[in-house]
Amino acid sequence: MNLDIAVLSGDGIGPEVTKQAIKTLKAVGEVYNHTFTFKEAPVGAIAIDQTGDPLPEKTLQLCLDSDAVLFGAIGHPKYDNDPSAKVRPEQGLLKLRKSLGLFTNIRPIKAFPTLIEKSPLKEERILGTDLTIYRELTGGIYFGEKKLNKEGSVASDLCEYSDYEIERIAHLAFKAARTRRKKLTLVDKANVLETSRLWRKVVTNIGKSYADVELDFLFVDNAAMQMILNPSQFDVILTENMFGDIISDEGSVIGGSIGLLASASVGDENAMFEPIHGSFPQATGKNIANPIASILSAAMLLEHFKLFEEAKAINKAVEKALEMNVVTPDIDADSKKTTSEVGNFIADYIANAE
Amino acid sequence: MNLDIAVLSGDGIGPEVTKQAIKTLKAVGEVYNHTFTFKEAPVGAIAIDQTGDPLPEKTLQLCLDSDAVLFGAIGHPKYDNDPSAKVRPEQGLLKLRKSLGLFTNIRPIKAFPTLIEKSPLKEERILGTDLTIYRELTGGIYFGEKKLNKEGSVASDLCEYSDYEIERIAHLAFKAARTRRKKLTLVDKANVLETSRLWRKVVTNIGKSYADVELDFLFVDNAAMQMILNPSQFDVILTENMFGDIISDEGSVIGGSIGLLASASVGDENAMFEPIHGSFPQATGKNIANPIASILSAAMLLEHFKLFEEAKAINKAVEKALEMNVVTPDIDADSKKTTSEVGNFIADYIANAE
Ligand SMILES: [Mg+2]
Ligand SMILES: [Mg+2]
Repeated sequence: MNLDIAVLSGDGIGPEVTKQAIKTLKAVGEVYNHTFTFKEAPVGAIAIDQTGDPLPEKTLQLCLDSDAVLFGAIGHPKYDNDPSAKVRPEQGLLKLRKSLGLFTNIRPIKAFPTLIEKSPLKEERILGTDLTIYRELTGGIYFGEKKLNKEGSVASDLCEYSDYEIERIAHLAFKAARTRRKKLTLVDKANVLETSRLWRKVVTNIGKSYADVELDFLFVDNAAMQMILNPSQFDVILTENMFGDIISDEGSVIGGSIGLLASASVGDENAMFEPIHGSFPQATGKNIANPIASILSAAMLLEHFKLFEEAKAINKAVEKALEMNVVTPDIDADSKKTTSEVGNFIADYIANAE
Repeated sequence: MNLDIAVLSGDGIGPEVTKQAIKTLKAVGEVYNHTFTFKEAPVGAIAIDQTGDPLPEKTLQLCLDSDAVLFGAIGHPKYDNDPSAKVRPEQGLLKLRKSLGLFTNIRPIKAFPTLIEKSPLKEERILGTDLTIYRELTGGIYFGEKKLNKEGSVASDLCEYSDYEIERIAHLAFKAARTRRKKLTLVDKANVLETSRLWRKVVTNIGKSYADVELDFLFVDNAAMQMILNPSQFDVILTENMFGDIISDEGSVIGGSIGLLASASVGDENAMFEPIHGSFPQATGKNIANPIASILSAAMLLEHFKLFEEAKAINKAVEKALEMNVVTPDIDADSKKTTSEVGNFIADYIANAE
């Protein structure tokens, strides 16, 4: 298979970890006779520094022309902590998701037995957790009209949803539930918000076409509690953009390591794969960042193109690395392995597995 | 000091637990030579039964004329389970908060050493946690304009904040930080939301007048993670209404028992103190309800009037009760101690501490 992959490694540790994902994909390409072509383009703070735009037109065009996007991370304190900054790294990611029509973010959260001792939750709470969050990604308050009066004293953000935006992700979430434990939980705040009441109405209607899937509802503040008290109760969680941001990030830490978590963002025409961790500016250039989440996002990319055996080869190599303790210090503080050494081990393991 | 305290003990277990808080305050008054005057008035279901109104005019007037309100709990199944009920107990609480101008909700979260085994978090995570959340209570998206188009296909909610709404709660939060560990964390989403950027700008400016308080910033999705990973890092958390709802409910479960959590709701002129648990109708009149949250809300009342030593005496007595296992069955299923016995122990400990 030929795949043109746009590489947007971004800021902070993004480039370091993405490099290991590319290395891994190249090893897969060698072994399984695929031609993966990588073309890089700037995004985020580095793109602002270079062009003034967090998502330059050339970067967007490359993504549109590619089969998939391999994304690193964006964000830099010099923009994040400056309330007067008019151009922000995150605008690049938000615009990219919107331009590529990536309306669904998928985040699997699983309690890996080998990592349970690293979980902040007690073993009996986290044991058996295996859930997936479907977060709406291109609507809601993050994209609604923003206003600031000219005195700079009154600000507002509009949260808006249409039935169409809810329907398309709801279908994906119900379909996913069908292949899993057949349970879908809609997280909202329907006792207070009009948009949440629309979500509840639309999802309830769509649920009638998925009668084999059990549908229930949870207010977001209660969901934030349940994610700690009893995360194994969840199968598929469906929610709007901002609630999904909060709940999925909360969920990301219960398994024990954020450095292992990958995600997919999909739309009708495009797909992007990225680690869920951020740009982690403090670690930049130190060769200590965990590349496994980025490498696993490359595995999700392969799965997206139905290269299941190839994806499995990556997953197996990652498991081997964990098993042999070839890990960065975030997984084992005593480990002296660097970002590139972990990447090398995984790529070599794939290359020499035959 | 003379304090006129309006007692609105409400429904369910409200009267039982509030009685113990009053007993405790009386003991404090004896020891420290303060005159606390208590005047009771009905609110909630019991007020509906008596007058048809969940917040009778006389009750509201008593609150307005008092220095503080000690609140129990409201809610009764005969109204809660009747969808056709036009008058509901909760309306009394909402109207009361609004009439008293209570724009700040304060929620302390503390890890009591004896309860750590009940926490869903591992001991090393929860140990040393002692934080307090300042949540804006009368603005933001819960109160913004709500719209639904006439086809019922597009809904919206507006989140709006003015500098004034932010300033008044920010001053309270900074002042609180001064009496604590001198650290304030603003939780927002300033990388995306205009309202959050206004929060950050206003709070940064006000912070200049509190140079002894360290101010930092955390995005709400990260805050949802940090509350699990490392809650002891926080001293005072300041945040807007909806983020505060989610983060404070998330935080409420990490300590191991909701039966110990008190809260305050304060405005420029009035202040109200209440346990965060509800009216728990099933336990009503059985003398088994945990009075500690209500007793700790009385300690918050004392702190509000800068009676720090007195508040500390209550906190110390509560810790002693926990340490000696003088607790209701929700804390220890084998305990045979009643609501009033726990209250007696705490009041006696204060009275005899000298
Ligand atoms: Mg996030
Ligand atoms: Mg809540």
